[in-house]
Amino acid sequence: MLEYLKAAVCDANIELQRRRLVIYSWGNVSGIDRKSGLVAIKPSGISYDELTPEKIVLVDLQGNVMEGGLSPSSDTQTHLELYRNFSEIGGVCHTHSTNATAWAQACKPMPCLGTTHADYFYGAIPVTETMSSESVGDDYELNTGKSIVTAFRAADYRLIPAVLVANHGPFTWGDTPARAVEIAAVLEQVSELALKSAIINPKLEPVSPCLLDRHFLRKHGECAYYGQK
Amino acid sequence: MLEYLKAAVCDANIELQRRRLVIYSWGNVSGIDRKSGLVAIKPSGISYDELTPEKIVLVDLQGNVMEGGLSPSSDTQTHLELYRNFSEIGGVCHTHSTNATAWAQACKPMPCLGTTHADYFYGAIPVTETMSSESVGDDYELNTGKSIVTAFRAADYRLIPAVLVANHGPFTWGDTPARAVEIAAVLEQVSELALKSAIINPKLEPVSPCLLDRHFLRKHGECAYYGQK
Amino acid sequence: MLEYLKAAVCDANIELQRRRLVIYSWGNVSGIDRKSGLVAIKPSGISYDELTPEKIVLVDLQGNVMEGGLSPSSDTQTHLELYRNFSEIGGVCHTHSTNATAWAQACKPMPCLGTTHADYFYGAIPVTETMSSESVGDDYELNTGKSIVTAFRAADYRLIPAVLVANHGPFTWGDTPARAVEIAAVLEQVSELALKSAIINPKLEPVSPCLLDRHFLRKHGECAYYGQK
Amino acid sequence: MLEYLKAAVCDANIELQRRRLVIYSWGNVSGIDRKSGLVAIKPSGISYDELTPEKIVLVDLQGNVMEGGLSPSSDTQTHLELYRNFSEIGGVCHTHSTNATAWAQACKPMPCLGTTHADYFYGAIPVTETMSSESVGDDYELNTGKSIVTAFRAADYRLIPAVLVANHGPFTWGDTPARAVEIAAVLEQVSELALKSAIINPKLEPVSPCLLDRHFLRKHGECAYYGQK
Repeated sequence: MLEYLKAAVCDANIELQRRRLVIYSWGNVSGIDRKSGLVAIKPSGISYDELTPEKIVLVDLQGNVMEGGLSPSSDTQTHLELYRNFSEIGGVCHTHSTNATAWAQACKPMPCLGTTHADYFYGAIPVTETMSSESVGDDYELNTGKSIVTAFRAADYRLIPAVLVANHGPFTWGDTPARAVEIAAVLEQVSELALKSAIINPKLEPVSPCLLDRHFLRKHGECAYYGQK
Repeated sequence: MLEYLKAAVCDANIELQRRRLVIYSWGNVSGIDRKSGLVAIKPSGISYDELTPEKIVLVDLQGNVMEGGLSPSSDTQTHLELYRNFSEIGGVCHTHSTNATAWAQACKPMPCLGTTHADYFYGAIPVTETMSSESVGDDYELNTGKSIVTAFRAADYRLIPAVLVANHGPFTWGDTPARAVEIAAVLEQVSELALKSAIINPKLEPVSPCLLDRHFLRKHGECAYYGQK
Repeated sequence: MLEYLKAAVCDANIELQRRRLVIYSWGNVSGIDRKSGLVAIKPSGISYDELTPEKIVLVDLQGNVMEGGLSPSSDTQTHLELYRNFSEIGGVCHTHSTNATAWAQACKPMPCLGTTHADYFYGAIPVTETMSSESVGDDYELNTGKSIVTAFRAADYRLIPAVLVANHGPFTWGDTPARAVEIAAVLEQVSELALKSAIINPKLEPVSPCLLDRHFLRKHGECAYYGQK
Repeated sequence: MLEYLKAAVCDANIELQRRRLVIYSWGNVSGIDRKSGLVAIKPSGISYDELTPEKIVLVDLQGNVMEGGLSPSSDTQTHLELYRNFSEIGGVCHTHSTNATAWAQACKPMPCLGTTHADYFYGAIPVTETMSSESVGDDYELNTGKSIVTAFRAADYRLIPAVLVANHGPFTWGDTPARAVEIAAVLEQVSELALKSAIINPKLEPVSPCLLDRHFLRKHGECAYYGQK
């Protein structure tokens, strides 16, 4: 079933390693087929070097395995909560990439300090609330997803396709699994920029709303004029 | 037209990736043929891996496309403003390289803290003024170029071939597209040095004028004695 | 003797270089055969490029060379002290990897600031006491091992398979030589995360005990559910 | 003349690039034949990719070119001053490697913060005095050498084979050109460790004299026991 999706998800997972966003098996990408409601996701603990489309697991939106002989990623319930709540996304990516994870561990939202950030994210990257011991103890991965959804009550997931899960690391998303990985790579780069800019000038303020508008809208929406038509 | 220039501009753009100054399509290099007044520039949003001389776009100094089936870089108007005002340059380069962009985001001029810097830049690297909402809203890329020109009212673009655009990133230039890229690579390295030196010694002062003279003039001007004659 | 062990120890030493945890010959991995009480260890000062299983030295638990024509690592007595005291380990690894060594030089225990850390280490990484001049002057490498054992009086070496030797660098261990190297690679990554998180938020507290439990126990012990069964 | 020396100097210069200690042509290595008093050194401004033993320049201890059609490194007079004053050295290396140069630009001696440092350098790495405008204006490269010699009035160049030239970068030396490059690579690594340790613990003190003794003497002098006999 869904050979195209399993191939795309397999490729996107391998891209994590090519972009140096992961070591060992620290990261996972999924993709959804909205018609059938099936999600293709990396199997748990498998290294990227041995990943093939046949090893990608298909689950339904409740997490039941529909195809595949391996257990799905231990973070599957987080991915599913995002698919259930963010109805327009087609791919989700989770990494422990160095600089983005440093911000997540610091439990700080990452301000928009420049146009590199503004080209992809329409404002600060939200950080989730620290989870209560109840949330951690029970249905932890599902509750991680819920904490992300809560963080986007005050933000639009279509305009800011990334979050920092407190004490943990980044999740990103996009219309395809490949796009979710691209956003993860950009977030890592932007996180390093923000860390270094804050060292050079600790009193730095976010960019002006008009510069944010200009750069984000140059690449997104009806009036976009970046790239080829 | 101008096959040599399109080849040189194509090579210089690919060199950005080889020198690890860009990811995805985040950077662009152009070159000018001063006789015809034509500028060769990277097409917008095209990856370096698929770039060929045939894809390089030729525009005149007002930005009209004279040859090529692709849209030119969205930063074209910034490049053109530099060619119109800095009459001796032959190539312009723009990147989001990590350390130089961190300084640009920090909105701080980068002081000359050592001879590595002094070998290429005759003083601090200027940072532009933050742009007003009018400037950002209207003819943004042109106004970016104007803010660079303004920053060089008090400096000589021939002696300091680089600028930090506030909240954005570096632009560099030289007599050829290849030289503009070399300056971008040097600026990135010098930016990392300055960041790290400032961490080790936060009260650091710029180098003495005589040391600046010695190193810059060792490599530039009539009395240069670095390299082979 | 013990061909399988010498091959595993040789591979694990070469992996140090592949993972960029060492330059020159700065690191060593050993493995033990608990039945015979023999330890296989890297010869001293030999580069990883010329290492072969035949060059691996076999010593007994007192440090007597039992097989091999080369001198064993100068750190052999430290490894042996760990094997004598930590009865369940099968491999030991020592590196000077950049970020873990920076923490060791700083003489600070490394707090658990996130789930990347909690996935592998059940709490802060201990740092040893600074050694007295007597300890350094006499049986230095043995006393280094003793200082590690002392640091684990208040911690369980099975749950925290790493230590920072003050002013020196990290030692890690596991059930096999390969696992000891994996732990060294993870420690290096976690050390960079901790350094960068502390820059972003200097007042950062360790993660909650419940999050530590959840992540460590997700991967270890009877109720582990990460990976494939 | 001196084919063996020119080959060794050529190799050592190329090693600078392999170890990522230089970009472009930013670094130079020389070697001396003490019998004839001739010094082999990199030609100025030549890239490492095109370097061959035939291009290495031979000069006498006063700097007269004795063989070779290219101009010697612009830093030649600094190298010669070191050979004239440090009678036991056989090779000299100069780089602008990132972390060592950051310390040199910061005009701070680099304290011995750990055993990685102590394994190669018997104490802090000295920094030269900032040069006066007279020294910079006249015989600059010779005076750079003199400032290094002055910095070693209170230290032994045989025990600390490296210096940080203020506002400039590191020079290192050893019994051969290859050893001078190895010391440069170690200094770069130790410089990164010191920078990061100081971030983690700004109040850090140097290691104890006894630990310094133990590690330095483990590798050097009559009682050395590191490596193979």
